[in-house]
Amino acid sequence: MAVLHHSLDFILSSPATDENLLVRSCPSKHSITQCCQSVLKKVHLSRGYEFIGIHFMFALLRVHSHGVVTIDLQCYQEDSIAEVDNLLNALEKKLKTLLNGNIKRIKRLPALIRGAEVDRYWPTSDGRLMEYDIDKVVYDEDSAYQKIQILHSKQYGNILVLNGDINLAESDLAYTKAIMGSGKENYAGKEVLILGGGDGGILAEVGQTKAKDDHHILVEDCVPVLKKYAQEGRTFDYVINDLTAVPISTEPEDSMWEFLRLILDLSIKVLHPSGKYFTQVSEVQNTHKKRLDFYFQQNVLLSSTGRQGNGVNMTDALTLYEEQLGKLSCPVGFSKEVVCVPSYLELWVFYTIWKK
Amino acid sequence: MAVLHHSLDFILSSPATDENLLVRSCPSKHSITQCCQSVLKKVHLSRGYEFIGIHFMFALLRVHSHGVVTIDLQCYQEDSIAEVDNLLNALEKKLKTLLNGNIKRIKRLPALIRGAEVDRYWPTSDGRLMEYDIDKVVYDEDSAYQKIQILHSKQYGNILVLNGDINLAESDLAYTKAIMGSGKENYAGKEVLILGGGDGGILAEVGQTKAKDDHHILVEDCVPVLKKYAQEGRTFDYVINDLTAVPISTEPEDSMWEFLRLILDLSIKVLHPSGKYFTQVSEVQNTHKKRLDFYFQQNVLLSSTGRQGNGVNMTDALTLYEEQLGKLSCPVGFSKEVVCVPSYLELWVFYTIWKK
Repeated sequence: MAVLHHSLDFILSSPATDENLLVRSCPSKHSITQCCQSVLKKVHLSRGYEFIGIHFMFALLRVHSHGVVTIDLQCYQEDSIAEVDNLLNALEKKLKTLLNGNIKRIKRLPALIRGAEVDRYWPTSDGRLMEYDIDKVVYDEDSAYQKIQILHSKQYGNILVLNGDINLAESDLAYTKAIMGSGKENYAGKEVLILGGGDGGILAEVGQTKAKDDHHILVEDCVPVLKKYAQEGRTFDYVINDLTAVPISTEPEDSMWEFLRLILDLSIKVLHPSGKYFTQVSEVQNTHKKRLDFYFQQNVLLSSTGRQGNGVNMTDALTLYEEQLGKLSCPVGFSKEVVCVPSYLELWVFYTIWKK
Repeated sequence: MAVLHHSLDFILSSPATDENLLVRSCPSKHSITQCCQSVLKKVHLSRGYEFIGIHFMFALLRVHSHGVVTIDLQCYQEDSIAEVDNLLNALEKKLKTLLNGNIKRIKRLPALIRGAEVDRYWPTSDGRLMEYDIDKVVYDEDSAYQKIQILHSKQYGNILVLNGDINLAESDLAYTKAIMGSGKENYAGKEVLILGGGDGGILAEVGQTKAKDDHHILVEDCVPVLKKYAQEGRTFDYVINDLTAVPISTEPEDSMWEFLRLILDLSIKVLHPSGKYFTQVSEVQNTHKKRLDFYFQQNVLLSSTGRQGNGVNMTDALTLYEEQLGKLSCPVGFSKEVVCVPSYLELWVFYTIWKK
């Protein structure tokens, strides 16, 4: 039974004073409705905030003296939607009267759904709150390597979530197109190496082109495989890095950036001189990595307050990434493209890298 | 000074009992940190919830006996981010110990920013909470007809918001392309009628085609103009309905649906027999309309908990719309397309309608 957390805020035109604001505690035995009604008749400001109601529901009216009045109302998913809506409407009406023209803005947000069986909140890479229309958990298992979830969204279809990070939804052909060069490449007769890509999206899409199709699927660590190819002098026309945002391990490297540089360096080594390397920047900063590690150790996955990739707003991380490109053993050039991947709810950056 | 509302929730593996849970009120003079520390040492469940701390910050720990523990922490934008983060980390750690293995999931959401100068929350049409990266109010005025806002988003550029409803952002060429037939139409030598489209996006894009370009811009009510064209027997190859989601007035019609049918009927009347009518379904239900009216009367615009258009999840509204198409004075056929408009943060439905 999820807790619905409603909020109703009044932004005042001028700071709150004893004369224009109210708050009073009330007996706990009253129902929330009676409670609000009785409380709101009394206009008195005590210490800037106070409890206003208790029953099954719970309401808190807080007056911030600089000029914001916040109302929090917690109820349960089982409670009557109409009753709660009426209560909020009544509260709003009452406060409008009490605040008597001193209102600059009123804001009522959709209720936060807390503790639901199916989690709907998956923040963006810059830590903004996004509520998905998840209606079903299709799959939820911890493998030896990753927490694997497939969640169903009404509009995006099935979404693959690895270690709490949204990877790809059925709606996201734009992702696959972008990481293959946005339709500007001719794959005919070309040799393609996909790193990661375990959801099969890129492989399926490459199969639609006239690329060489004698494909092998290797389920193993890509680092030794890349090292072997590099040693053999084997090259590819396209290397597509679609590794997960949160690597299973960065060992034996010391940091995420060193790990990232290792993958980049090896990828460029196996790239044909006229070839192209495509990637999105999904690297995590060390601090995030450690945080995730901690929760895995505890066997409880915390969804951190930002996703583990880099959207277009992560300008510092993108700059850092571009700095890494200057530190590779082979000089490279690069271009980038900003793409709207439907289920990501933020614009995403894709890089094309080539040997100079 | 915005209020930051943090939440930290523990979803328990089994219901909460006196033995495995805690709560205790504490003196108001304590700082929140001291408060939490002292409270969390005492393990006692009283009536299911209680206040745990007060100072400038405010924290509330609520134990829902069916198995959800919610922590709410309110602080201010000026407060030290590191201090608040440390406090939440400490709370989380402490509760992990206290709940001793009885945790199924932990969820910490990005803080809600309440009462900020610049509002960041613009819900989807199906009422889901979305936090935009708005960093500036470029324009904010009430005209005689509409509340007009131009907000700047870091990733979407300037966003036009009319009556609290996101209309179009600089990132949204996909919207304009979709409402012009998604590049499948040949505009060469064609006559085009745009209804609404006051942001100029469609006009600019039509200008890129070889459509007849002796354009006239009429700033007036489209209903009498359409009636005049119909009377004159004037027709257009393309009629593009880009009217705002919230009409200034639906008079003299009784309801939104009748108003919508009037516009549709007139548009089809001025459509060439082989022409096409493009639209997105942005009609509001009567209840919403009345609600908005109420707030306009009060001169305080409330952002309702859903935007005033129909995303792909609004299946009932879309079905109702399609039913209206069967009630027109001229029989029509239609097709629809689902498009990702970047700044909408939900998939959007576009219709193509033609005379049978």
